Amino acid sequence: MKKVAIIMGSMSDWDVVKACPELLSQWDIPYEVHVFSAHRTPVEAKDFALNARDRGFGLIICAAGMAAHLAGSMAASTTLPVIGIPVAGSKLDGTDALLSTVQMPSGIPVATVAINGAKNAAMLAIQILSVEDKDLALRLDQDRASMREKILAQDKELQKRLEELNE
Amino acid sequence: MKKVAIIMGSMSDWDVVKACPELLSQWDIPYEVHVFSAHRTPVEAKDFALNARDRGFGLIICAAGMAAHLAGSMAASTTLPVIGIPVAGSKLDGTDALLSTVQMPSGIPVATVAINGAKNAAMLAIQILSVEDKDLALRLDQDRASMREKILAQDKELQKRLEELNE
Amino acid sequence: MKKVAIIMGSMSDWDVVKACPELLSQWDIPYEVHVFSAHRTPVEAKDFALNARDRGFGLIICAAGMAAHLAGSMAASTTLPVIGIPVAGSKLDGTDALLSTVQMPSGIPVATVAINGAKNAAMLAIQILSVEDKDLALRLDQDRASMREKILAQDKELQKRLEELNE
Amino acid sequence: MKKVAIIMGSMSDWDVVKACPELLSQWDIPYEVHVFSAHRTPVEAKDFALNARDRGFGLIICAAGMAAHLAGSMAASTTLPVIGIPVAGSKLDGTDALLSTVQMPSGIPVATVAINGAKNAAMLAIQILSVEDKDLALRLDQDRASMREKILAQDKELQKRLEELNE
Amino acid sequence: MKKVAIIMGSMSDWDVVKACPELLSQWDIPYEVHVFSAHRTPVEAKDFALNARDRGFGLIICAAGMAAHLAGSMAASTTLPVIGIPVAGSKLDGTDALLSTVQMPSGIPVATVAINGAKNAAMLAIQILSVEDKDLALRLDQDRASMREKILAQDKELQKRLEELNE
Amino acid sequence: MKKVAIIMGSMSDWDVVKACPELLSQWDIPYEVHVFSAHRTPVEAKDFALNARDRGFGLIICAAGMAAHLAGSMAASTTLPVIGIPVAGSKLDGTDALLSTVQMPSGIPVATVAINGAKNAAMLAIQILSVEDKDLALRLDQDRASMREKILAQDKELQKRLEELNE
Amino acid sequence: MKKVAIIMGSMSDWDVVKACPELLSQWDIPYEVHVFSAHRTPVEAKDFALNARDRGFGLIICAAGMAAHLAGSMAASTTLPVIGIPVAGSKLDGTDALLSTVQMPSGIPVATVAINGAKNAAMLAIQILSVEDKDLALRLDQDRASMREKILAQDKELQKRLEELNE
Amino acid sequence: MKKVAIIMGSMSDWDVVKACPELLSQWDIPYEVHVFSAHRTPVEAKDFALNARDRGFGLIICAAGMAAHLAGSMAASTTLPVIGIPVAGSKLDGTDALLSTVQMPSGIPVATVAINGAKNAAMLAIQILSVEDKDLALRLDQDRASMREKILAQDKELQKRLEELNE
Repeated sequence: MKKVAIIMGSMSDWDVVKACPELLSQWDIPYEVHVFSAHRTPVEAKDFALNARDRGFGLIICAAGMAAHLAGSMAASTTLPVIGIPVAGSKLDGTDALLSTVQMPSGIPVATVAINGAKNAAMLAIQILSVEDKDLALRLDQDRASMREKILAQDKELQKRLEELNE
Repeated sequence: MKKVAIIMGSMSDWDVVKACPELLSQWDIPYEVHVFSAHRTPVEAKDFALNARDRGFGLIICAAGMAAHLAGSMAASTTLPVIGIPVAGSKLDGTDALLSTVQMPSGIPVATVAINGAKNAAMLAIQILSVEDKDLALRLDQDRASMREKILAQDKELQKRLEELNE
Repeated sequence: MKKVAIIMGSMSDWDVVKACPELLSQWDIPYEVHVFSAHRTPVEAKDFALNARDRGFGLIICAAGMAAHLAGSMAASTTLPVIGIPVAGSKLDGTDALLSTVQMPSGIPVATVAINGAKNAAMLAIQILSVEDKDLALRLDQDRASMREKILAQDKELQKRLEELNE
Repeated sequence: MKKVAIIMGSMSDWDVVKACPELLSQWDIPYEVHVFSAHRTPVEAKDFALNARDRGFGLIICAAGMAAHLAGSMAASTTLPVIGIPVAGSKLDGTDALLSTVQMPSGIPVATVAINGAKNAAMLAIQILSVEDKDLALRLDQDRASMREKILAQDKELQKRLEELNE
Repeated sequence: MKKVAIIMGSMSDWDVVKACPELLSQWDIPYEVHVFSAHRTPVEAKDFALNARDRGFGLIICAAGMAAHLAGSMAASTTLPVIGIPVAGSKLDGTDALLSTVQMPSGIPVATVAINGAKNAAMLAIQILSVEDKDLALRLDQDRASMREKILAQDKELQKRLEELNE
Repeated sequence: MKKVAIIMGSMSDWDVVKACPELLSQWDIPYEVHVFSAHRTPVEAKDFALNARDRGFGLIICAAGMAAHLAGSMAASTTLPVIGIPVAGSKLDGTDALLSTVQMPSGIPVATVAINGAKNAAMLAIQILSVEDKDLALRLDQDRASMREKILAQDKELQKRLEELNE
Repeated sequence: MKKVAIIMGSMSDWDVVKACPELLSQWDIPYEVHVFSAHRTPVEAKDFALNARDRGFGLIICAAGMAAHLAGSMAASTTLPVIGIPVAGSKLDGTDALLSTVQMPSGIPVATVAINGAKNAAMLAIQILSVEDKDLALRLDQDRASMREKILAQDKELQKRLEELNE
Repeated sequence: MKKVAIIMGSMSDWDVVKACPELLSQWDIPYEVHVFSAHRTPVEAKDFALNARDRGFGLIICAAGMAAHLAGSMAASTTLPVIGIPVAGSKLDGTDALLSTVQMPSGIPVATVAINGAKNAAMLAIQILSVEDKDLALRLDQDRASMREKILAQDKELQKRLEELNE
């Protein structure tokens, strides 16, 4: 199976980002996590992106805040799908990171998820890997079923609580 | 090769969306385009999403404006990757569509591209299909090289123009 | 009397939403509360909406955060009035939920109240039920009178406090 | 059947508002349209609201731009449901009107629709009247069916056009 | 001397508003403070505005949050200058109140100060009263001189601190 | 009667600003109009503000766009009331000018009107002058009555048009 | 004298950018203009930045729209001052480009000017070069004087026009 | 070496601003820090700016919040480069200060850094001084190398931690 690369712009993003490798671990998806900065280690970031496909990666997840250039600059050096997580790391609560990540010019897309949406970035990675992997597709169906069960259980629990209140 | 589904919420989105099938055509990627509305044909939209993987689709691109629920509601009924194009179809110039598309709750991601970014949606689709398709990966590299050539040609042309001005 | 349905996208919205059933209880308006997610239980959500009128509901209140599709997707499957409460459940403080709820396309309206406006959603529901219910209209008039009394009492209290300060 | 009142803050809002009486006419819903300003004719506006229920109105639709106080100030003088249409009548493209209309304080809700959403205001009015009117509910179902037909026809037309292109 | 009226929409605004009467007290400007709500006591609010000039008021300061209609609705019933304080009383941190207060339609202005700018509202009131009051104008000059002194003293203190650090 | 000063940051603001002297002319209020820039003629701007009260001005209206410092910088050099008109002169449609004008720090208020609200700036000036001028107060009452008449005439005209349509 | 480098992300930015070389030409400041894209020619962009100081450049001006990474990515590969011009090239009117340019993380600043502020970017470049260039400083003083003259002339012209109107 | 002036609008900005003199101290760049307010000490602010170049300053850093006029008003009285730090000192989290600082009109630029970006303001100042100072340029290269080392060390540390987790 292709590996997933998770790159964050700074260790200070770890609290947001860690949900991403955690989910991949649960799904037994192979991954690497790295700290590379578009502005402080541009050469390392570029080199990682240039070689990612050859090194067996299937896609790259990038998390960065403020003027978040990491996803876009990785995307400039690879043709693998790049998923961008805008991190709410400034006074603007991630609006700056969201626009810096999603508003990419024609030709170089970044697949952007919600502000601080590390878990969804991992989920999207799994979905992308599932396109040619029937087993993964099956597990995704089971996962959806279990999400559904959780909501239905919440509803059942709520009905019980409401009944007790009304007795 | 897996097919790409392109769904738009209304024919009025066509002027924005058409860049998407045009690019896929140039790349000989098989696709279908449909008009389905999350609000006016919810059953058809859901049925399409539910059966998309079995019908040979590898991913679904959804374009919608305003309170753009199409991508999210398709994503709720498939585990294929869903790409969302926020369409600038209201007085708010696509801010509403962007937030309605990208801010998906945990578990159901939408891979969002720029406002009106139909061409990038297609490009992201090709990248996703390239994960397990070496030929496509090769063509993507060539495409990048040609993008680069175009910019370098623009620069050369600019130098010529500036020189003429200074003579 | 027609019942009011209150649907929330997740139990995590309960702290905001509970003001809604509390007010309906005080007014002796029959209601049901449910957890249904537009994205995690789309089938259950749709089925509830499709059958709501036949099951004696007069309207549906939906509360959801982020890319808040719940109200819109319920509205797509019923012709009952749907009231949307945008919940401030993300880094964007409900701006995303507000736009995702209020900017509905032509044909499928959602009656949107303020961000986290659960109490006003209940009040709007009562007003809608009062259109054909003279008794309820009368009670609404009394409620307004009592709101007015509270403000006038606040003013009286304030005058007293200010006088004491000035003595 | 209860009548619908449509109030606009100025004749300059007519181009946006007229979609509202047009739809009500098509549905044979009785209505009145008036120009009343929260700021220039506050007495007339208040008097209209105070007497609306007694004069046979079931709800009031208010359209105003900029610091749009009309819906809120009508709502302060009636307990009928008030629907607010934020009109994009300033340099801020209706953001000011949207927030001035939807962010009502506790106790006095305004059922807000999209910026310039006159048609949806009328549709919401019909849905509210349908709560106790089975015939109207039936016609709403038929209307939804016809909306669905239109989208399906658009899709069919699109398939035809695409086929011709590919031949 | 003309009196200043300070009206707030709810006692919950008091923490923000109280800086306003405090400043007026320090300046020996006569004032009244009242709680009147544009939506919950529209009649009392209007009556106060209608009679304010005859009762010896020179201007009215209004403070309200969310869809802040208080200043505008007072302004509709008086030709005295009305000063609006947008109160940050919602999830939107006063953006809603700012736009609802400042974006008044042609003919009915509201003199708007900063979000939560209660002190500046009082200062503006004093400036307005100073137009025909030479004594007040003189005291305003002295106040400016004292503001200047405070800043200069801050600078002197800072220099001392920095010197100590460098020793 | 005190004179009104109208200062604009550049002749390019004239199309927006001219509504201001036009209204003052109609009301026979004495005024001067000047082009002074906070950034290009800071000395002249400051000198004008410093001497304005002695030269018989009762207040200063300032219009500027973008990072609109004019009103604030005039206010720093006078204790007369300063009215600020945020001009929509950039890609941001006046949002920049609005925040630069209204968000003044404690001690130096600017009475801000709507974006491009030149007419309301003049009206606010007249209201301020009316505080100690009974005649002006009377004329303001008459003006309000005539505004009311215009709206009522619009309503009458609308009823006639609607009747003709329905015949 | 050090040269100024002007880099734009695409020839489509030329209409905005050209004011920049035009001003430098008038001031006889040596410059080069290039089209380099952070995303389409990342290598060329980086190489230019890496060698800019050695090649005699004193600073780099970068203009780009949307998720504008150009200035930040150049700044990552040089320690020369980098000036960023956010270009209004999308549906968001430059808000995306502004935030992507100005909100740089700690350590790698970009000196950001107004949206589309090409002329000010050139002026800032001249000011930076003037720090160690007395002659340039003198010419800047003269330029300010001439700006002042233009505003004063506008004011004189305005007085004349107003007088003619009043005759 | 030219000195750097750091001006803040109020001592309350010190917590944000102090990162600026701290960095300059570490780099042995001579500087002065002052509290001057554009609105409360306009004369002192202007005088400082007018004489700054003659007193040996190479540039001026200004920090202010809300309607942040300080940088712009200093820039109006000097032709030295002025760097603006928008301070997040209001309910709007620095959006007001950002727009008031960056959106300067043509002719008078302010080199704007991120909201609360005091450290980057100092770094930009060092870069500007480095244009004609080879030693400083060399030290900037070393600083970049050390930034790079820190990120690489973070990555190494992360790999170690992840390995330990996986053992």
